[in-house]
Amino acid sequence: MANTEVEFSILAGAGVPVRMFKEGEVIFREGDPATELYVIKSGKVDINSGNRLLATIGENGIFGEMALIDKEPRSATVTAATDVEAVPVGEKQFLFLVSQTPFFALKVMRVLAARLRAANKAI
Amino acid sequence: MANTEVEFSILAGAGVPVRMFKEGEVIFREGDPATELYVIKSGKVDINSGNRLLATIGENGIFGEMALIDKEPRSATVTAATDVEAVPVGEKQFLFLVSQTPFFALKVMRVLAARLRAANKAI
Repeated sequence: MANTEVEFSILAGAGVPVRMFKEGEVIFREGDPATELYVIKSGKVDINSGNRLLATIGENGIFGEMALIDKEPRSATVTAATDVEAVPVGEKQFLFLVSQTPFFALKVMRVLAARLRAANKAI
Repeated sequence: MANTEVEFSILAGAGVPVRMFKEGEVIFREGDPATELYVIKSGKVDINSGNRLLATIGENGIFGEMALIDKEPRSATVTAATDVEAVPVGEKQFLFLVSQTPFFALKVMRVLAARLRAANKAI
């Protein structure tokens, strides 16, 4: 929890505004060009690829990290499952967080590792 | 390339010895307990899950990172496809590399992201 608070305070200090999404709103679609990941401040999102629900992510969770890491288009569609407040993290802020807060880097790695294990099980 | 050299010099400075594996040798098996990842100094390894070849990794590539990130048993079996020299990176060194060399953290993320995209395509 403390780690996440550190991230939010860094982002707030950098003047990053919170973005609001209404329940049911599409935040981004598979194939979209991508420039940022999101940290969820409140609410939940569903991550879908085609008709398959890959994951539901809640408070303090991150999504959209794939495209920021490998610069490819969005690999999935993300929809607000409830009303959502999320903080966008652009490439510059991402590199700053990775270099200044190793816990953030580890958190991104854990998210990717968990999704990879789940994907490998589904194959 | 420069980034990788930095990593090797850090590891060498930490007194980490290179480990040698003969062509065909199993480096670790799916389900094994895990305490380290490897950076390949020379040679190639095959990553298999069941009968499925997930990836072949070459010089400067990393493998075994999953188990270090999420503390779960090995998610795949890795076999030396040629004679291999690899540097083991334990948890303490891993955390040190992540905190001191952001490029290493980004490299691990890119590896995970690439494997996740490949897995999602295979589902």
